[in-house]
Amino acid sequence: MQLGIIGLGRMGGNIARRLMGKGHEIVAYDQNTQAVDALTRDGASGAKSLTELVANLAKPRAVWVMLPAGEATETTIMALAEVMDADDVIIDGGNSFYKDDIRRARTLREQAIHYVDVGTSGGVWGLERGYCMMVGAERAIFERLDALFDSLAPGYGTIERTQGRHAPDDRAERGYIHAGPVGAGHFVKMVHNGIEYGLMQAYAEGFDIMKTKSSPALPEEERFELDLADIAEVWRRGSVVSSWLLDLTAQALAGDDRLDNFTGAVADSGEGRWTIDAAVEQGVPTPVLANALFSRFRSRQENTYADRLLSAMRFGFGGHVEPPK
Amino acid sequence: MQLGIIGLGRMGGNIARRLMGKGHEIVAYDQNTQAVDALTRDGASGAKSLTELVANLAKPRAVWVMLPAGEATETTIMALAEVMDADDVIIDGGNSFYKDDIRRARTLREQAIHYVDVGTSGGVWGLERGYCMMVGAERAIFERLDALFDSLAPGYGTIERTQGRHAPDDRAERGYIHAGPVGAGHFVKMVHNGIEYGLMQAYAEGFDIMKTKSSPALPEEERFELDLADIAEVWRRGSVVSSWLLDLTAQALAGDDRLDNFTGAVADSGEGRWTIDAAVEQGVPTPVLANALFSRFRSRQENTYADRLLSAMRFGFGGHVEPPK
Amino acid sequence: MQLGIIGLGRMGGNIARRLMGKGHEIVAYDQNTQAVDALTRDGASGAKSLTELVANLAKPRAVWVMLPAGEATETTIMALAEVMDADDVIIDGGNSFYKDDIRRARTLREQAIHYVDVGTSGGVWGLERGYCMMVGAERAIFERLDALFDSLAPGYGTIERTQGRHAPDDRAERGYIHAGPVGAGHFVKMVHNGIEYGLMQAYAEGFDIMKTKSSPALPEEERFELDLADIAEVWRRGSVVSSWLLDLTAQALAGDDRLDNFTGAVADSGEGRWTIDAAVEQGVPTPVLANALFSRFRSRQENTYADRLLSAMRFGFGGHVEPPK
Amino acid sequence: MQLGIIGLGRMGGNIARRLMGKGHEIVAYDQNTQAVDALTRDGASGAKSLTELVANLAKPRAVWVMLPAGEATETTIMALAEVMDADDVIIDGGNSFYKDDIRRARTLREQAIHYVDVGTSGGVWGLERGYCMMVGAERAIFERLDALFDSLAPGYGTIERTQGRHAPDDRAERGYIHAGPVGAGHFVKMVHNGIEYGLMQAYAEGFDIMKTKSSPALPEEERFELDLADIAEVWRRGSVVSSWLLDLTAQALAGDDRLDNFTGAVADSGEGRWTIDAAVEQGVPTPVLANALFSRFRSRQENTYADRLLSAMRFGFGGHVEPPK
Repeated sequence: MQLGIIGLGRMGGNIARRLMGKGHEIVAYDQNTQAVDALTRDGASGAKSLTELVANLAKPRAVWVMLPAGEATETTIMALAEVMDADDVIIDGGNSFYKDDIRRARTLREQAIHYVDVGTSGGVWGLERGYCMMVGAERAIFERLDALFDSLAPGYGTIERTQGRHAPDDRAERGYIHAGPVGAGHFVKMVHNGIEYGLMQAYAEGFDIMKTKSSPALPEEERFELDLADIAEVWRRGSVVSSWLLDLTAQALAGDDRLDNFTGAVADSGEGRWTIDAAVEQGVPTPVLANALFSRFRSRQENTYADRLLSAMRFGFGGHVEPPK
Repeated sequence: MQLGIIGLGRMGGNIARRLMGKGHEIVAYDQNTQAVDALTRDGASGAKSLTELVANLAKPRAVWVMLPAGEATETTIMALAEVMDADDVIIDGGNSFYKDDIRRARTLREQAIHYVDVGTSGGVWGLERGYCMMVGAERAIFERLDALFDSLAPGYGTIERTQGRHAPDDRAERGYIHAGPVGAGHFVKMVHNGIEYGLMQAYAEGFDIMKTKSSPALPEEERFELDLADIAEVWRRGSVVSSWLLDLTAQALAGDDRLDNFTGAVADSGEGRWTIDAAVEQGVPTPVLANALFSRFRSRQENTYADRLLSAMRFGFGGHVEPPK
Repeated sequence: MQLGIIGLGRMGGNIARRLMGKGHEIVAYDQNTQAVDALTRDGASGAKSLTELVANLAKPRAVWVMLPAGEATETTIMALAEVMDADDVIIDGGNSFYKDDIRRARTLREQAIHYVDVGTSGGVWGLERGYCMMVGAERAIFERLDALFDSLAPGYGTIERTQGRHAPDDRAERGYIHAGPVGAGHFVKMVHNGIEYGLMQAYAEGFDIMKTKSSPALPEEERFELDLADIAEVWRRGSVVSSWLLDLTAQALAGDDRLDNFTGAVADSGEGRWTIDAAVEQGVPTPVLANALFSRFRSRQENTYADRLLSAMRFGFGGHVEPPK
Repeated sequence: MQLGIIGLGRMGGNIARRLMGKGHEIVAYDQNTQAVDALTRDGASGAKSLTELVANLAKPRAVWVMLPAGEATETTIMALAEVMDADDVIIDGGNSFYKDDIRRARTLREQAIHYVDVGTSGGVWGLERGYCMMVGAERAIFERLDALFDSLAPGYGTIERTQGRHAPDDRAERGYIHAGPVGAGHFVKMVHNGIEYGLMQAYAEGFDIMKTKSSPALPEEERFELDLADIAEVWRRGSVVSSWLLDLTAQALAGDDRLDNFTGAVADSGEGRWTIDAAVEQGVPTPVLANALFSRFRSRQENTYADRLLSAMRFGFGGHVEPPK
């Protein structure tokens, strides 16, 4: 199939390469002409502008936009729509907020342009392992693009079949799904990331308890110097907590289990936040997901106004002066 | 009434002074002889040892131990028991763990010595405002000491009567209660402090949201420079969140609403921790009380092993390098 | 001063009455003509429509809208604007979302109509105790309405002055503030309610720990039948956790400390949710406020899909069959 | 090697069978003689009493106790010690609290009997997949029992090697570790289970957000009927959240994604609780692990006293009457 790709960063470039490797034809554009040249050398056809990109694609066209969520994606999609035609498809493969998808689809519908949102998981490993994709789209448009998703997805691989599964559609087992109408793809991906935060924080807290078990403040008999790299490793085998994140943890700890190279100021992206907004909107109690997010917020601050106000109150009622950190 | 007091720190000294002010006779002991001398000048009779203290009291004796919870309290009570007689009373007015009370009472019972645990709230303000007390004791012993508690308590004061209250015993309205058998006094005080942590954290988080509302990251129209001192002040009048802790907040913010003199490394005492242990033991969901405690733990650390492990995982799956703090 | 009031429910009616009691002139409108009649009998001038209301007010007019947040408020304000003139003022005294205030003010500015948002605390007690108000408005408009706020506020009352406070403006001490530009009033009120949820939940969890301390599952010696009404009462005197919410707790428990008349399905309003949205938007860790909200969400459900999924996983890895509730 | 096993429930029986399958010699005892008979038919040598069990083992003996933690384990170990000799080994393979291990080891040391604690993960899948084991023991005793652990462990299997791992000891990669001195095995297992609760709750909350996204309360365009079985399935492929727990989730949802067969009253075991106690003791902020535990507590109650108290306060300040559930 033929596909236009806009945005040749780590994600966009690898997606293009994986598709070309499976025989698809790519027309590529990026503001950074070096990125375009690099991909051209790998077999893509390069474009110098959105107009040229569109001109080089056969109708009905499909263009995959792979840019940072927000301003960049919004502007590009709107500019792209101006040079596209009825029945063309714009795919947002980035991390847009799903309500923005719904709004954009509504706008583009006036020009009869189709909009598709693809939540993509796989990160830097995707080129090799394939991308796990959740797609929001009209059913017919999803079907039209099916060959692309099929090529990008990991496929069955060596993963064991789920016992008791009898779904007629095996796409999920091959690594992608039609999640629902426009917005559903990014919504599912958003929750995916919210869960990811929770899982990560669960491991992090547990390893912290084990790390601090060597504290001299504890009774000597109850003080353990635990080998955290070995523990992560052993849990990879036959334990209930085995996971890909645990594999990564084992890998990180195998190098330096003190993790002194990390400042611990943990970034968060839109999806973690939107997950909590969704939970609040829907009235779903999500203490674990919310606290995982809050732990990241806190990790980036030296102290908070809240902390200082606690100290001020303690001084007020008890004359307590906190010790320096 | 006659009372021996051991431990003439801020709390013990003020308790002695309040009791003397109400006509009670105090025999005082402290390792620090200057503290004893100071109280002697205020009218107490000083003792140079536990033995002398006990010798100077008429039987059945009552001795109030007001020392830091843990080692100091434990050792003193046991030493005191050795020089006391059957039917004497030892009062632990400190912040002991209630299970320690139960254990000690069991031990002292073999000598027919009575044990009383008094949870005391009031802090540095107690001398003037009176102490709010929760007493764990055999009923008869509580009655024997009633005059002391009555003098220490704030009394009715100017506080409005609770509508609909018809309890025959008005002690609660005068500021002290017989909470139950030995241990119950400190248990109720423990939960009191657990609640205190939760209340403080609720205010702290709310003020933090208002403080950070001036962030340049927000759209200009939605950015407010709020006068937090004025807000605390206005909430003291007719609002649902008015409280003594809010009064203290207003006072702290009236001075310097930036709170830059505080490092924000917030200490916690045993009671906050034991409250969570109790909740876990009893299977009570206490997300607010637990998170208030965890926020204090976190406030004292620059970063946590957990934070650093999150960064390590993020590097593992996405090649993300966190920015410096 | 002259004021139009739209919405004569419990809040609007009482506000009108308190203002009339202080000599202000009220023109009142409500869809429910009986409410208008009732207020007319108390001295107000009634109107049969928005147009009539506006016609009966001298320019520049001020109209206080006191309706449920959302649809009702939005529609009324927009209809009102159509019949008002430049330099008139519309006051939203309800619980609107502060971003809606900002949007409305922007719209009304095109007609040179001023918009004021008033966050009001005081509930059913306001008529008697006065209302605590946080006002978002242009400074000059706030000053123009000052006499109204002054009359509605509780005033100094018997509340002790805050030590160390030297603010030149004593309005906060009289119970109202100019919080900032449009939106700031409702923003501060929103955080107020967020804090309220946290405070309430802190007390609730603490009392739950004390209630369940009588559980037969505990060792007999550590089992206490605590008198919760007495405990709430005693904490009202000289304790760190004394507050108006504790006063209400004491009142509730004085009647029936089992609270069997309550189902425990706790409602939540917009403000509690928006507070968490604001914290997430601003990157402020608010575990206590968020968990207080989540506890309310959970209280209204018999079980959650999350609960059931946990059971399903436990069955999967351990063959565990959960006991019936 | 020769091993005595006490407790032939699901776990003990399977451990015995796996060991016999690898050529070890088992002497088995259980109060339930049918369980003994069943195992005898599979090749074990049966014993009718602890004394007989011990008599049938060559010195220095090793006996694996696999009973419910608490009373049963405690009594059996103490009874066993009475009939064992110096240099014999007692292994507690159950889920004991690690401080109990330390205490028992101290007691048994007086008889020169060695104590070993083995934290075992693997559940009903262990017979086939092998058991992941964390062992607390004196180093020499761990080495003495090495052949047993080696046989019980899953071995390398098909699991990919951890990149960057250069540990000289490959036991972790074969599925078991010497975690440290007595107590360390159960401590590490305890944290393992604490993490497990956090992971499970993270998935559960995320799926709940997706489930409730079909709520008619949401705007129609933002309402999605998501196929949760497909979503769990697709995430198993190339996504960051893939894990064994996700495999189980996919399996559970493949059958009936409504999960209506589950009441959602989720049990918890000692380890989840002790993990929080440890965090509190060590001052480690663990909001995610604690909230995962609290969610289980809450899941088993129809309403809480805390919930009802919130309603009572709301009635007090606002006259709010909560709707029925």
